[in-house]
Amino acid sequence: MKLLRVGPPGAERPVVLGEDGTAYDLSGRARDLDGAFLAGLDTAALAREVAAGVLPVVDLDGRRVAAPVARPGKVVGIGLNYRDHAAEAGAAIPAEPVIFLKPSSTVVGPYDEVLVPRGGEKTDYEAELAVVIGRTARYLDSHAEAAGVIAGYTIANDVTERAFQFERGGQWDKGKSAETFTPLGPWLVTADEVADPQALALRLWVNGEQRQNGNTAEMIFPVLELVRYASQFMVLEPGDVIITGTPAGVTLGRPGTPFLAPGDVVEIEIDGLGRQRQVLGKA
Amino acid sequence: MKLLRVGPPGAERPVVLGEDGTAYDLSGRARDLDGAFLAGLDTAALAREVAAGVLPVVDLDGRRVAAPVARPGKVVGIGLNYRDHAAEAGAAIPAEPVIFLKPSSTVVGPYDEVLVPRGGEKTDYEAELAVVIGRTARYLDSHAEAAGVIAGYTIANDVTERAFQFERGGQWDKGKSAETFTPLGPWLVTADEVADPQALALRLWVNGEQRQNGNTAEMIFPVLELVRYASQFMVLEPGDVIITGTPAGVTLGRPGTPFLAPGDVVEIEIDGLGRQRQVLGKA
Repeated sequence: MKLLRVGPPGAERPVVLGEDGTAYDLSGRARDLDGAFLAGLDTAALAREVAAGVLPVVDLDGRRVAAPVARPGKVVGIGLNYRDHAAEAGAAIPAEPVIFLKPSSTVVGPYDEVLVPRGGEKTDYEAELAVVIGRTARYLDSHAEAAGVIAGYTIANDVTERAFQFERGGQWDKGKSAETFTPLGPWLVTADEVADPQALALRLWVNGEQRQNGNTAEMIFPVLELVRYASQFMVLEPGDVIITGTPAGVTLGRPGTPFLAPGDVVEIEIDGLGRQRQVLGKA
Repeated sequence: MKLLRVGPPGAERPVVLGEDGTAYDLSGRARDLDGAFLAGLDTAALAREVAAGVLPVVDLDGRRVAAPVARPGKVVGIGLNYRDHAAEAGAAIPAEPVIFLKPSSTVVGPYDEVLVPRGGEKTDYEAELAVVIGRTARYLDSHAEAAGVIAGYTIANDVTERAFQFERGGQWDKGKSAETFTPLGPWLVTADEVADPQALALRLWVNGEQRQNGNTAEMIFPVLELVRYASQFMVLEPGDVIITGTPAGVTLGRPGTPFLAPGDVVEIEIDGLGRQRQVLGKA
């Protein structure tokens, strides 16, 4: 099942896609696609409603697609989770997952403008598989338990200003927190429709030139381990998002390649999860 | 003006204290003390209502006091902002503010239990002045502009598990994110009642023994600079909280002193902002 949110910022409406791509308005069923909705989501029951044709059809043409989760409680970032990316970043292979945080004020829709921050000189892309949490999770014991708290998956661009991340002192968060720095979407694909989250190809293009071409099979720590591990250090709540790291090919790892500039176009695709497209602007 | 929230977790009600300490129920005026409330807060008008005696009196006896802001959008941490603490931590004096993030799922009330996380061995306290944001702030140009976005001040305990922070790889956030790790309160004291945020004594005791005895006059980067600076790297929104760093005296800086353990009692006081008290438990 594919869930999405459409409408202008602050006035998004929840939508579900039928098997044939028809879009149905969920406003009568849910205030929004938020943690409370995900915690109570019964995908089988909703699929029956879609099939029964009782939901109003909605036309998506020309409407903005928003992030498929309303203002996550937190966005948990995982660093250096692909060997080839750790190598290009000049970092050691981590012995356990590297965790950082992004403010949820960074989240935008999959086709929204991404802004190079003022003073930013090294704004970079990172194509990532995003995990959306559906149940409260603390101190999970096993990968089976981790599977039980995942609502679904979507695409994230973990936009990062490298100069702020590495050259301004302190923690990575400084380079991960600017407005528009976490495009999410287009859809939340429920977990039952993702047969194997470790077998998804990820691709990213800048101005049509392919820059990233990875596969989640190459993750150092797989999705279920990331969810189990993160739950040892924080409570994961419905609506929280974990972005699971990026494969090789970021600008940081391509000396001589210019960083992102206004007018550039970034496109990301993950098998089964659709495609994002952002045009760069300037804050 | 002192604003607070009382009631069990998830069912808190907003309250305002009158000059004589009488508590008035604000439920009829505000759904909660959240970003939307703070963005629209007119302290002078509210003070007139309190003085006019039109608000219902509420008895606080025996009621839980919650954090004075409902689920902040983000909690921005500032590291190493007092010279004596940087020295005790073995860190250099930062050239510009060090920023990290805490998930808002860490926020609890000022008298709530603080839990040593599972696997935690070095759980530590940090008494801090907390700034509560009242207006959206991006790329602030001056300290005057920074002053204009501050709703008020409260006390924070930036509880930290040092083993997770320093010995598990990656970023500080790993040791800053456990449930109950950000007690806030007891009150939000509005900015008009804090004559000089750089002249506030901070004190912290563990089991009655004083461990921290600092003053915000000793900050490396003052409050207005922290707010201006943070707004260059992220959008600050009403209800966001910035915790401004801790003075010397944390357990990390006292070799031989045991870290926090279940049953320990932590008390924090800041001039004009009241007093917190937490009993330690175990997750």
